[in-house]
Amino acid sequence: MSSIDTHTPFDQAEALLAEEPTAELGPQLEELPMVDAARAFARLEEGQQRRVLEVLEPELAAELVDCIPDVQAAGLVEHLEPQVAAAIVQELPSDEQADLLGDLPAQDAEAILSAMEPDAAAEARQLAGYADDVAGGLMITEHLQYLRTLTVGDVIADLQANADEYRDYDIQYAYVVDEADVLCGVLRMRDLLLARRSTPIHEISIGGPVSIRDDASLDDVCDLFDTYAFFGVPVVNEAAQLVGVIQRAAVEEALADQADATYRQSQGIIGGEELRTMPLLLRSRRRLAWLSINVVLNIAAASVIAMYQDTLAAVIALAVFLPIISDMSGCSGSQAVAVSIRELSLGLVQPNELLRVWLKEISVGALNGLVIGLLIAGVAVLWKGSPLLGLVVGLAMAINTVVAVSIGGAVPLVLRWFKFDPALASGPILTTVTDMCGFFLVLSLATAILV
Amino acid sequence: MSSIDTHTPFDQAEALLAEEPTAELGPQLEELPMVDAARAFARLEEGQQRRVLEVLEPELAAELVDCIPDVQAAGLVEHLEPQVAAAIVQELPSDEQADLLGDLPAQDAEAILSAMEPDAAAEARQLAGYADDVAGGLMITEHLQYLRTLTVGDVIADLQANADEYRDYDIQYAYVVDEADVLCGVLRMRDLLLARRSTPIHEISIGGPVSIRDDASLDDVCDLFDTYAFFGVPVVNEAAQLVGVIQRAAVEEALADQADATYRQSQGIIGGEELRTMPLLLRSRRRLAWLSINVVLNIAAASVIAMYQDTLAAVIALAVFLPIISDMSGCSGSQAVAVSIRELSLGLVQPNELLRVWLKEISVGALNGLVIGLLIAGVAVLWKGSPLLGLVVGLAMAINTVVAVSIGGAVPLVLRWFKFDPALASGPILTTVTDMCGFFLVLSLATAILV
Repeated sequence: MSSIDTHTPFDQAEALLAEEPTAELGPQLEELPMVDAARAFARLEEGQQRRVLEVLEPELAAELVDCIPDVQAAGLVEHLEPQVAAAIVQELPSDEQADLLGDLPAQDAEAILSAMEPDAAAEARQLAGYADDVAGGLMITEHLQYLRTLTVGDVIADLQANADEYRDYDIQYAYVVDEADVLCGVLRMRDLLLARRSTPIHEISIGGPVSIRDDASLDDVCDLFDTYAFFGVPVVNEAAQLVGVIQRAAVEEALADQADATYRQSQGIIGGEELRTMPLLLRSRRRLAWLSINVVLNIAAASVIAMYQDTLAAVIALAVFLPIISDMSGCSGSQAVAVSIRELSLGLVQPNELLRVWLKEISVGALNGLVIGLLIAGVAVLWKGSPLLGLVVGLAMAINTVVAVSIGGAVPLVLRWFKFDPALASGPILTTVTDMCGFFLVLSLATAILV
Repeated sequence: MSSIDTHTPFDQAEALLAEEPTAELGPQLEELPMVDAARAFARLEEGQQRRVLEVLEPELAAELVDCIPDVQAAGLVEHLEPQVAAAIVQELPSDEQADLLGDLPAQDAEAILSAMEPDAAAEARQLAGYADDVAGGLMITEHLQYLRTLTVGDVIADLQANADEYRDYDIQYAYVVDEADVLCGVLRMRDLLLARRSTPIHEISIGGPVSIRDDASLDDVCDLFDTYAFFGVPVVNEAAQLVGVIQRAAVEEALADQADATYRQSQGIIGGEELRTMPLLLRSRRRLAWLSINVVLNIAAASVIAMYQDTLAAVIALAVFLPIISDMSGCSGSQAVAVSIRELSLGLVQPNELLRVWLKEISVGALNGLVIGLLIAGVAVLWKGSPLLGLVVGLAMAINTVVAVSIGGAVPLVLRWFKFDPALASGPILTTVTDMCGFFLVLSLATAILV
């Protein structure tokens, strides 16, 4: 063991996990920090990951599954024996159970649910019925809930009796319900300290508590947490019954996931997150889905050049400027897309405010187009000594910058208006139209002025 | 008022804020949901925002400042009278105070601090000294801290006496310190319920609590929260003294901010977030800073085309394929960049694992390059009936795809290795090299095969 001790915990975890897993693996892994064990585990090929999970206690296996990226966890659990998977899933926090089962194909999720304890399965089924981005999909069911007729003494006795189970709960508040489970108050733990044990809890609880419906959107949940400084908000169903609690950290985590997805999609990683441990053909297929759309759009845009072959043959220098104008317009347009997506997510602009956005964009586009256009024109004049060539490429660059920021600023609003994800399609729509327009401007201006 | 009542709360807030602000504005705004008031406020021009803040009570003004985007809050507070700004800043939560003061030019922050109450200023100075992305910059100082020799009864009496002040605290835990403020235990509120009032708190507190140093990085803080299910973690300084508490929600929020920044930077919004309410010249200057780097790089890349003018003049059809190959390689490379950045942030790959990443990328690049290359070659053959033209553009496309994913996968690791932000520079480095390489491949292959 002395040689292993000179390495970092991560190296130790990697060495342990690389071997054929035995019953000793669990205790050895538990001596290392969970974060190092989980990272080493996440880097294994899927077959080895499955063999490791099969030998570990379900509780430790669940900790590993909880720490690895969601997309990896789903692919992994999907291919475990349903009994093994069920034992692991039961040990996950309720919101993670629901996320994981929701990411699985329906029949795999059903096989796992059938192998779970009936109570746990019923709860998991209910949670898995919610979408990821509504209040029900963000909440946890581990919360404290007491009947309004109980006394302070009853609650304290329950806290004492179930101290172990409640260990990981956020117990700043308990929720007070009536006989039909309808939420009727919030009980601050601190107030229990200050009350007599015989007091009924409804006397010291806060009535008419703020709550949110289980089908409320992530935007509505964010608004609620922006408005109030709460750490957690109770979630109720259509019948006003308490079904769970959303914690502020879960909302922030959902926003971080959304921002990560926006970035990935803007870079052309579509159809699910990619990790390099995934099979080659899956990675290739997903990337190709995006590339094949783009290649068709690119060919369409470049066909504009084909229409002006005579002009291009007469002034071959234009071919140097075509990719420059195409790329620079893409850059300007991307900036406008990013500002629109950010303002939409901050709620600073509404999808119907196209005119407001467009007026703000054409002013900055005209200014930047002028600067970049003059620069390109200067390069053309210096290189070829032709002021007319400078005029053609400079003017095309300036006009196309205005076109690019107009489209870039507007397309995310239009997509959001029609309920599409603004980050998904802004890129190819933008570059296709700005490429076509840029090629057309350069070549038609050249035909008019130079040829 | 009847006409206003038919509008949404947001419309009402917008109508109220558009008028010349009077002393009545505060009470009227307070009747509307804060989230609507804050959004309407965020959309005002800066001059009107200042006039509004000057008439509101500092507490309400602070709520508005807390709700608008950070970048806007800093620009706004910077131009207020220091006395007005100080009154508002004092009402912000401690972590927001520090963030805001940290975003201001040093002399403006100093002017505001001088106008604050000495105690509040001293605390704000200390917090503002931390960077945004270390534990000290994420923590709040609003926490419960008790000397170890106090009794349960003392603590309960303090909770009772200061109930109002503690209203917004997360009081699941209190922290136990010795005479030198050194953290020595954590007291679960629940345990107070179960103990006799005369018990010294050190007897019922948990010793050797998990804590984190104030200079720990965001990555380390994330690792800690990944490892433990805690809602909050105490922060200690070099002398092991308790200085604050980090909440899980603050960590998730920092991650969301980081993901937002990654997206913005990948789209060329550099040098600070842009909102369309900002002055035109500022917006233009920031966007131009990025565009002007790109235009130079683009001209450098296109100069490869200039070197092959004779080849291009002989086979003018090549000009149609140059932008296609440039753009498609950019797409393939961006996908590889996104996967590398994601794997880096998940800790699944380390900056020194270039070989591992490269091997994974060339396999997917070779496969996708083959598919896209065949497609482009097919288009060339169909259009011009020339198998040799198809060979040239297809081969160039296939090779350049492998080049693009190799560079795209590797550059983020190299930038991280040298402590640069991987999202910042991956784009222009990638497109410049892949454009140059793509142009060179098409035109040199054409020179060898076609001309």
